[in-house]
Amino acid sequence: MANWINQITLNDHSTEHRYMQIYRQLKELIIVGGIVHGDRLPSVRQMAAHLNLNTVTVVKAYDLLEREKLVVKRTGSGTYVNDGKRTALLTGIAEDEWDQESIQLFRQQQQSFQRTVVITPDTINFASATPSPDLFPVDDFKQALLTVLDRDQGYAFGYQDPQGYQPLREAVRQQASLAGIRSETDDILVVSGAQQGIDLVAKGLVYPGDTVLIERPSYGGAMQAFFSRSARVTDIPLESDGIHLELLEKAAKETRPQLLYVMPNFQNPTGISYTREKMEQIIMLSEKYDFMILEDDYLNELSFHHQPVTTLKSLDRYDRVIYIKSFSKMFMPGLRLGYLIVPRTATQKLLAAKQSSDISTSGLLQRALEQYLISGAWERNLDVLTGEYRKRFDLMNQLLSNQLPEGVHFQTPTGGLNFWLQMPREINGQMLYESALERNLVFAPGRLFFLRDPEDNCLRLSIAAVKLQQLTSGIRLLSGLMNLRLRLDRPMKDVLSRYQDPIL
Amino acid sequence: MANWINQITLNDHSTEHRYMQIYRQLKELIIVGGIVHGDRLPSVRQMAAHLNLNTVTVVKAYDLLEREKLVVKRTGSGTYVNDGKRTALLTGIAEDEWDQESIQLFRQQQQSFQRTVVITPDTINFASATPSPDLFPVDDFKQALLTVLDRDQGYAFGYQDPQGYQPLREAVRQQASLAGIRSETDDILVVSGAQQGIDLVAKGLVYPGDTVLIERPSYGGAMQAFFSRSARVTDIPLESDGIHLELLEKAAKETRPQLLYVMPNFQNPTGISYTREKMEQIIMLSEKYDFMILEDDYLNELSFHHQPVTTLKSLDRYDRVIYIKSFSKMFMPGLRLGYLIVPRTATQKLLAAKQSSDISTSGLLQRALEQYLISGAWERNLDVLTGEYRKRFDLMNQLLSNQLPEGVHFQTPTGGLNFWLQMPREINGQMLYESALERNLVFAPGRLFFLRDPEDNCLRLSIAAVKLQQLTSGIRLLSGLMNLRLRLDRPMKDVLSRYQDPIL
Repeated sequence: MANWINQITLNDHSTEHRYMQIYRQLKELIIVGGIVHGDRLPSVRQMAAHLNLNTVTVVKAYDLLEREKLVVKRTGSGTYVNDGKRTALLTGIAEDEWDQESIQLFRQQQQSFQRTVVITPDTINFASATPSPDLFPVDDFKQALLTVLDRDQGYAFGYQDPQGYQPLREAVRQQASLAGIRSETDDILVVSGAQQGIDLVAKGLVYPGDTVLIERPSYGGAMQAFFSRSARVTDIPLESDGIHLELLEKAAKETRPQLLYVMPNFQNPTGISYTREKMEQIIMLSEKYDFMILEDDYLNELSFHHQPVTTLKSLDRYDRVIYIKSFSKMFMPGLRLGYLIVPRTATQKLLAAKQSSDISTSGLLQRALEQYLISGAWERNLDVLTGEYRKRFDLMNQLLSNQLPEGVHFQTPTGGLNFWLQMPREINGQMLYESALERNLVFAPGRLFFLRDPEDNCLRLSIAAVKLQQLTSGIRLLSGLMNLRLRLDRPMKDVLSRYQDPIL
Repeated sequence: MANWINQITLNDHSTEHRYMQIYRQLKELIIVGGIVHGDRLPSVRQMAAHLNLNTVTVVKAYDLLEREKLVVKRTGSGTYVNDGKRTALLTGIAEDEWDQESIQLFRQQQQSFQRTVVITPDTINFASATPSPDLFPVDDFKQALLTVLDRDQGYAFGYQDPQGYQPLREAVRQQASLAGIRSETDDILVVSGAQQGIDLVAKGLVYPGDTVLIERPSYGGAMQAFFSRSARVTDIPLESDGIHLELLEKAAKETRPQLLYVMPNFQNPTGISYTREKMEQIIMLSEKYDFMILEDDYLNELSFHHQPVTTLKSLDRYDRVIYIKSFSKMFMPGLRLGYLIVPRTATQKLLAAKQSSDISTSGLLQRALEQYLISGAWERNLDVLTGEYRKRFDLMNQLLSNQLPEGVHFQTPTGGLNFWLQMPREINGQMLYESALERNLVFAPGRLFFLRDPEDNCLRLSIAAVKLQQLTSGIRLLSGLMNLRLRLDRPMKDVLSRYQDPIL
């Protein structure tokens, strides 16, 4: 047996699990080169005997090493150290055991909720955050498509400039300037939807091991994009007027992040909007601690407030804000179109990321969108959508204010499509979700929006796809279910807590 | 001054540059923890004095450390070791100095060629490898779009299943089965063009530090996608019947790659097609050395040979081949549509990569493509394109056989759109490219297709976008320019070599 096995010891007084102790010590040995590429680990049985443990514990430690590619199992032969010290180190750093577990947990919870839902015409759908197909301006867009096809013929189907169709960039530049953002067409990069925008920023600016700060709670799709870069993602709590500034500064000081990802208007999922003061202080911090800001503006058109919406990008005096605009929420999600406004320092990196991702976004759709924007159809559609959403928003706000059970709280947003509910801790969100689903009502469970330590007693209700006439019955049903769960979940806990059951 | 500075020494007899010696020693000190996070490096002046060097050399070493994020410069304060040993190591491994330089060089040469070209109607365009807009089936596709819009209304614009529109997956499954590939619709993933397919495979299966093997020469866009994952990319020479098997096996044994990327039919840029025997042996090797194969089938429809084309995927008995099909070369590049056929073991990973990249591909375009495929328009268009390309191919082959200067070689491909020319080493490809450009003739310089140590005396001529009536004058012009360069470049070298000028 290998002589280094004697270096593996257990500390019985440690709070660390035994399998973690074994795992950690083996990993360290691999990192310092005490065990090298091609070495065979002692068999599970040998290791168990050496440490006086049962074999299951050793198997768990070996599995963890294997999952991180530090070792490989070969059937009938044993477990071998992988690919030398360097890969081992690399994998160990990029996705250490903690991150790895947290990512897996995150993916599992995302999947467990998304799999089961079948939306029928009768479903009361508080889950979807994008408009339902009956709200799409199909005829206007069809007209734009036909105009483009007649005008451009085959050129509508050729490769496009990776940065985007020039006239479309000019059209969205003008759109952004109405929102107070000054830019040049050279600063604009057309992308295949906001998710691609986030992914390109991750790809162009974030390297394995870099830190990315996000809001808590936040959008899961962004977390996935950062995970895919093996970034270290850290979440900073939101307050009612935006991200917690002291905690942001503390994290910035300690982690020296590469990027901060925020949604300063009608944040998803909470609906919170940042104050202008907070926006300005965040920009100061980005300069002080040398990080970039990714502003996801998925919905600023939908303000129900009298003040015009301020964007971070319009306050960006240090050229540190990358602005992402989606056309999925106030237009049509299935087109997969959006754009970035990019500081000069980052343009080449993001352009290279775009080219290696999909070369360019569909020229036909870019041309049709440009035609649609300049034809005036965009404003018309915005008016229609805003009118419809305003009705839903007001009724929803009224229903929630009057009908929610005691102890269930929400803050009226100043715009957007989402209401964020916080329930008493006793309510089991998973159970609430499942009993609602049985009654054909769906919402987005709060857990989906947490990077780690998910809070189970929150939920997001969106008015994007639910019908106006379903709102009253929907909120009545939901409130009834919450009341039921309050009765069911509360005494259960009380009874069990008397026995101090450590399982709960 | 820090006491460890005495550990930094120079070896005057080494062939390694002095700045590299300094850089390497500092890096090692950081890695072993001799210098830690927050430590300040000696000033450039101090280090230069200590080593008895001029300051420029030290600056170069410090710059290299900074580029790898091992240190940070703070204005007016000095140079500090970054973020601890772990990040340092990580960065050092993922993009070490050698890879870093090679990537930079690669990007530079890609950019330097692509920037300057303006294609006019008069340009003799041997560069583009995708059809010119006059060959696109605009009317048929417009009809398909209209059919979809009338039939599906708003649903054509909603989010699509990330895996792809089910009827389209069924249509391409049938298409693939005609090429001998058996699959289920569950194995198919619709992507936004072949480039995205490659990028998703990189994202889903390749981790920082993993090795990816490619052909030499190969497609630059694939290299970019692998670089973006901080992969180690290694190229294996091509022979006239496919990749060099012994060198492939040697590399597989030494590097334990994660992935092999190949284009077994009408390879880009060389036009080479693999023999069936070679394909089968590659599949054996993938099983023996446990790697996946990414088969980029960008053009198998365009066979001018009597035998049907064999794909690697149809021989994939170990379920190790990911098959990528592009619709850009034989249809319309600007649509950005393609699909993957994926082994079961990889489906979930690639689906997650797709979702975090752009959620899904445009539903409208997917629906229109499905309509186009099942309407029979696809076969019609294929016949038209094949007929047109066959004419160009035959004429091109004849012209090249008769008119190329002595010493310029090419191998007639059995299909596809590319001819790969190898010129005598004396010809300076960059000069040839520029003098052709002056005369409004463009081609793809060979250097673009090399991962490293680019060969300057190759070039790729594509018949995809050049007009039939331009071929004769185009090849005459090109041959004339080659003859000119042979006269100009050869004696220059002869003269200079007599002086043993070390600059050349």
